[in-house]
Order: sequence, then structure tokens, then C-alpha cells
Amino acid sequence: MIKTICGIDIGGTTIKIGFFNLEGRLLKKWEIETNKADKGRYILDDIYESILNQCDDMSMIVGYGFGVPGPVIDGKVFHAVNLGWVDFDLKSEFSSLVLNKKIHVDNDANVAALGEALMGAAEKYSSSVMLTLGTGIGGGVIINNRIIDGAHGSAGEIGHMLVVHENGIPCNCGKSGCLETVASATGIKNLYEKYHQETHQKTMLEDFTYPSAKMIFDAAKKGDQLSIKVVDEVTYYLGYACHILSLVTNPEIIVIGGGVSKAGEYLTDKIKEQFLKFKYSPVRNTMIEPAELGNDAGIYGAMGMVKNRD
Amino acid sequence: MIKTICGIDIGGTTIKIGFFNLEGRLLKKWEIETNKADKGRYILDDIYESILNQCDDMSMIVGYGFGVPGPVIDGKVFHAVNLGWVDFDLKSEFSSLVLNKKIHVDNDANVAALGEALMGAAEKYSSSVMLTLGTGIGGGVIINNRIIDGAHGSAGEIGHMLVVHENGIPCNCGKSGCLETVASATGIKNLYEKYHQETHQKTMLEDFTYPSAKMIFDAAKKGDQLSIKVVDEVTYYLGYACHILSLVTNPEIIVIGGGVSKAGEYLTDKIKEQFLKFKYSPVRNTMIEPAELGNDAGIYGAMGMVKNRD
Repeated sequence: MIKTICGIDIGGTTIKIGFFNLEGRLLKKWEIETNKADKGRYILDDIYESILNQCDDMSMIVGYGFGVPGPVIDGKVFHAVNLGWVDFDLKSEFSSLVLNKKIHVDNDANVAALGEALMGAAEKYSSSVMLTLGTGIGGGVIINNRIIDGAHGSAGEIGHMLVVHENGIPCNCGKSGCLETVASATGIKNLYEKYHQETHQKTMLEDFTYPSAKMIFDAAKKGDQLSIKVVDEVTYYLGYACHILSLVTNPEIIVIGGGVSKAGEYLTDKIKEQFLKFKYSPVRNTMIEPAELGNDAGIYGAMGMVKNRD
Repeated sequence: MIKTICGIDIGGTTIKIGFFNLEGRLLKKWEIETNKADKGRYILDDIYESILNQCDDMSMIVGYGFGVPGPVIDGKVFHAVNLGWVDFDLKSEFSSLVLNKKIHVDNDANVAALGEALMGAAEKYSSSVMLTLGTGIGGGVIINNRIIDGAHGSAGEIGHMLVVHENGIPCNCGKSGCLETVASATGIKNLYEKYHQETHQKTMLEDFTYPSAKMIFDAAKKGDQLSIKVVDEVTYYLGYACHILSLVTNPEIIVIGGGVSKAGEYLTDKIKEQFLKFKYSPVRNTMIEPAELGNDAGIYGAMGMVKNRD
């Protein structure tokens, strides 16, 4: 076995694990189920055992990187709702299993952004932002190939940026009108419901009580007017988020990932169109492109935290 | 003469110049007038001669830092409207006057932000953002005591962030509804005019056709209802900008500078109050404080670019 970096992406349903060589090339990857019993107390042991099973010489692993679904500061996870972890010192707990190894931990959206920055859509660029459009919206800010964490681990938490100033839809965070309420998969369904109820407009999705974000995008592509109205509003808000980002850290590229981004260039072209309407000319060449690594972005980024700090 | 760093802050009316020792302590400072004749072609010669006059041994100056009112990339000034410079290669031009010296050039708002980060209100913190509220609004983003410039030199251009989505006031940049149109000194006067005309509400500023931002703040402090309405709206938008910043780079501190910030803690307390209404709890401890270096922030930051890259 050669010297190896281990990248681990902990999700609410599965944990993705990858072995990489020191240049960052993927050697092997696999998944295990996330055991959330007893407030997630078995998760780290499960990961350790799974790595042990896949590895013929643990001494060849030089470091471990973790992406975690929640805010992280200095290796400590404040609150990962989906795992049951509260104030969980992942770095210190895992270091008792693998003595004297490098361990880096960060928020999963930040880690995915680093993955895309090192090996994906933003590979050629030193500054980028990734928006992950899933059930919620995560984000990660990368400058000079390093994750920006921020003072409270909240850098890149773009999903909770207020975009609807009045009568916004309530968000899980306790506020109303967050970007996430109108531009995540949930947000897209929210807007569809709202317009469908308000306008009673005919739509090709009439037969579905709760059409998915994908169905709404597909219907918009086919010319369904109600769906087009929803997609226009969703991409207005995403274009606005890109406008803001282009004036705060002004990245070379904004990468759009997550399940919703499966709509591909249809989505990113519409976001670009809306972004350009904000017309601040010095930033008009900011690229907005779909993510490239899909579900592997997390393990790549987790590896990258270890590789970059060698 | 001891080894010296020279910090230069070029403004549309005056040029501020400071000599600093290598630890960043100010040794001497002075000002000269900005000669804008012939598209600003005399400005660099004037600066050079003025330094020559103040200095008994030019060989002891180890480097020069410049803050310039316009976007800068790699030492080149794209467009400094107030000086008449277009595509002006300041670094290369000045280096022909002072051979083999370090020269660093950046936008004046970025440079002021670095000044406050190194020696002013953000001195104790490694990540900060400064908003400079003057005729317009400038901004600078600092991470690990370095200026973030961005791909197009537009990082920190927070004044052109759209905050009024419909029927916004036109901005100099060609758009409408920018933060600058409702929260700079000009923006404050804009809002006062608008409400005064719309409501015909009585105000203690009735005798003044065009009251200044300072007069409006002073009247608000004394309980003038129309002025309070204006200040509430101005600080709502500034609180919103702080909310956005706290979710993009998530700085430890946001520093409020520029002429408008002379309203001091009355202003920053109101911004904090509005900021907290956005209620994203992980960032609730973000500090919002008045700048400390006043007009010297630029020369301190200009020095800092040279000192930091020693």
C-alpha cells in the first residue's frame, strides 16, 4: 500500500469514504450507512472499522479529512441535526482512534466547494464559491484554494441570506425569506405551490399533488407557463445571490451543485441571464457553471484539506 | 534616517503621505494637493518630489504603498474617475522613479480596511470588513490581515450591492437601487428628500433646502420624526449589508468608517439593532464598530501592504 489520504463525507443517510494518493488521485471509494442511533455515537467507530477493513496497512494513511453536515470550528461540530451531534469534538474523538495523524474537519458544503475547487468545475481557478442546491442551500467560499470558515464557522452560509424582505416563507432556521425558502428543491416546490394556489393557472403538472423540483424544471423546459414563472423567480434569487457574491469576495467562478443542479446548463444559463441583469459591469465575466464531481465532491474536498496543509 | 515604509493615499482633492518605521509606527505625515490637470499626469511626479523634500535619504525607503480611488488589478488602475486616470499602470510608472523598490497598489477602500485591520478598530481580529460611508460607499474585505481583491478587483464593492429591488433610486454606476443610493451621505439626503416630498411631514430641518447627512443624524438624535424615519431606513439597509457579509466571509468585526460614521456609536448601535433583526443566530456576536483611524486609515493600510509582504 502506498501513502494514502483518506477523505470522509458524512451525510445523514450514507457516509462516503475515499482513499487518495498524495497527489490527490482517487484510488478507491465506497459507502457505508449512517447509524444515527444514540445521537450518532457509533458513527466514528463505524468509519474507523470500515477503513480498517479496506486497508492493509493503517500506518500508510497520512491523514483524514471530514465533511460534516453542520457548523464546525477548529475540528468541533456545534450541531449536526441530521446526525444527532451537539458540541461534538470530532477531531479529538477520532484522534484517539488513529494516534498522531493529521485530522481536518469542516462543514460539508465548504468541503464540497474545496473538492470542486481542487478537482472539479473550479479546478483552473484560485477563487470560487459553490452553492449546493439540495433540500436546503449550502455554500462554500474558496480563496487561494483554501476554505474560508469565518469567525463563527458561517462563511458561505448563503442559504440563510434574506432575499424576500416582506411576507417571506418561514425557514428551518427560524427566520422567513431566506434564499433557501425560494431556491432550494424545497423552495422551488414552495413557489410552485404558492403560484398554483394563487393563480389556478393550468399546468402540465396538474395530476401531481406535490411535483418535485426536477418535474418543475422539466415542465418549464417543455414550455409550461406556471413552471416557467417559478423557474424565473428561482433563478432571479440565485442570480441575485451570485450578484452579491461577485461584490463580496468576487470569485472567478461560481459553481452550482447539489441535486437541483442536475437541471444542468438550462439552470446555470438562466442564473447567468438573471445575474447579468444586475449589471455591475466590472464583474460581468464571473463564470457560473454546473458542478462536475457530483456526490464525490465531498470526499475530494475532505482529502484536499489534508493535502493542502502538508 | 532609519529604514522607512512610505504609505500614500491618493484622493480627488488631497494626497496624504506618511512615513512609517518597519514595525508600522507613524513617523511623519503630511498632505499635498491633487493636481488633476491633464488627466492627472502630474500626480506621481508631485508625490515623488514631495517625498524627496521630506526625506534626507531616499535609499532608506524600502517600499511604497498606494491607495487609489478606483478599481486596481496587479498595480494597474482601471479607471479613477476623480483623477482622470484610465488604464494607468501606476506600479510600473512609479517604479521608473524609484528603481528597485517594492510598490503595492490597491483600491482606497480596500487599503483603508487594511489600515483599520492592522492598527485601528479591527486590530485585534484577523478577519474584518470595513464599510466606508462617504459620498458613495466603499468596502474592503480582510482575511488573515490581507486584502481580498477578487478576480476583477471588485471584492468589497458593497456599495453597488442591490438592496432596493423595485423602483430604486438611480446610482452613478448605471443601475438603480444600490446600497450607495440609500445609505451613503448622498443616499441619506436622497431618502430625506423622498420622504419630505411624499409626506410633507413637519421637521426641524424645514429651513434647510438640502440638509446634510450630519444634520439629518443630529435631528434624529433630537427626536425629529422624519429624520428618525430616514435613519431607521438607512440603518436597515446597512444592517442588511452586515447580515450578508456575516454569511459570506463571516468576519469577526465590521468596521464602519467614512464621513457618515462621524455619527459614531449612535449609528453603529442602530446598525447592530437592525443586524440582529435578521436573526441568524450563529453570527449574532459579529461586532459592528466605528472606525478609529479617521483620515489616516489610508496611509496606514498603504504602509501595511508593504509591511505585510516583507
